[in-house]
Amino acid sequence: MADVANDHRICFIGDSMTQGTSDPTCLGWPGRVSAAAWATGYAVTAHNLGIRGDTSQGVAARWQAESALRLQAECHKYLVFSFGANDMTPQGDGLRVAVAQSVEFFTRIVSAAQARHPTVVLGPFPVGEAAQDARILDLCPLYAERAQALGVPYLPVARFLTDSALWRVDVVASDGCHPGAAGYQLVADRVLAWPAWWFSNPTIS
Amino acid sequence: MADVANDHRICFIGDSMTQGTSDPTCLGWPGRVSAAAWATGYAVTAHNLGIRGDTSQGVAARWQAESALRLQAECHKYLVFSFGANDMTPQGDGLRVAVAQSVEFFTRIVSAAQARHPTVVLGPFPVGEAAQDARILDLCPLYAERAQALGVPYLPVARFLTDSALWRVDVVASDGCHPGAAGYQLVADRVLAWPAWWFSNPTIS
Repeated sequence: MADVANDHRICFIGDSMTQGTSDPTCLGWPGRVSAAAWATGYAVTAHNLGIRGDTSQGVAARWQAESALRLQAECHKYLVFSFGANDMTPQGDGLRVAVAQSVEFFTRIVSAAQARHPTVVLGPFPVGEAAQDARILDLCPLYAERAQALGVPYLPVARFLTDSALWRVDVVASDGCHPGAAGYQLVADRVLAWPAWWFSNPTIS
Repeated sequence: MADVANDHRICFIGDSMTQGTSDPTCLGWPGRVSAAAWATGYAVTAHNLGIRGDTSQGVAARWQAESALRLQAECHKYLVFSFGANDMTPQGDGLRVAVAQSVEFFTRIVSAAQARHPTVVLGPFPVGEAAQDARILDLCPLYAERAQALGVPYLPVARFLTDSALWRVDVVASDGCHPGAAGYQLVADRVLAWPAWWFSNPTIS
């Protein structure tokens, strides 16, 4: 029977970088950190709700319904978000989601999330296109500031990844935008080393 | 850039057995068959939309919205379903979903699905409880009959798994209801050996 004390259900909500696109192991970083949690003694149920191309606006429209269906049972419940990269994609004369709107969606999503369940955020990922990556790097501190104001742990990843030779080489060897297994492992390792991550220390049983 | 010819996106929609509950590798059988597709040359984007405890009624209520959001891009699109085990859970004087209703939801879901995208179905899984498993085994031929009438490939799994010593031992060693890695691998192997499975033969490139 289910052991409620060790029943941890996580929704990972974001874009292709959360989905794990182009990872031939089909784990992405969410699968990797979830398997690591099992190895540390946590019985984790991981829901990967990453959707390729999704923006902050897209996440805002769906995260509540999709996560609520998956976090109904009596259990420990967690929300992990990462989005924003696709907001910075050119569209018409501007961007898919303008910077001010993107920050507004971020604030709306993260404040509602943390009111519901323990929540953490990974910043937007780089996408391997110089101009867009520059806009993503500019967006990061705005997201970080809002996260801090809300008291929600925020892990920046964009600068770390654009500076990483491993990441860059892996993206080029993959589809030019997303990494393969090695790049996703790099992100997973960063999450696992993050003091805010819930499952880094062994369970006390 | 994305290669539309080799861009295969699959939604796996079902209950805990699709979600991969209690699999410490966090792959379940959907992750395993998707990684196998990569190894055969298919660039697969796998969406695991399994929800623990979900019934045919629950799947009917959500599959269209959840899969439509994930299958918007120009790409090859696929739907894989497996549900019904939780319909056979006792509730009040009856079941969570009565047999006739369950078959009706099955028909409604599968006929709408195949009108949209290539669709296959795995039958409901056993849950490690004798009386419920007997009801699940009785439900299987009714689902199979409907699938055949609709021309949708249907892979029965319940009898195969209740007859499997590997499965039964793995369930007992796990949480008493779901298997661990070995049991999910057993299911993945069965899917990969299924002539209806889309990704068993190497891509021609």
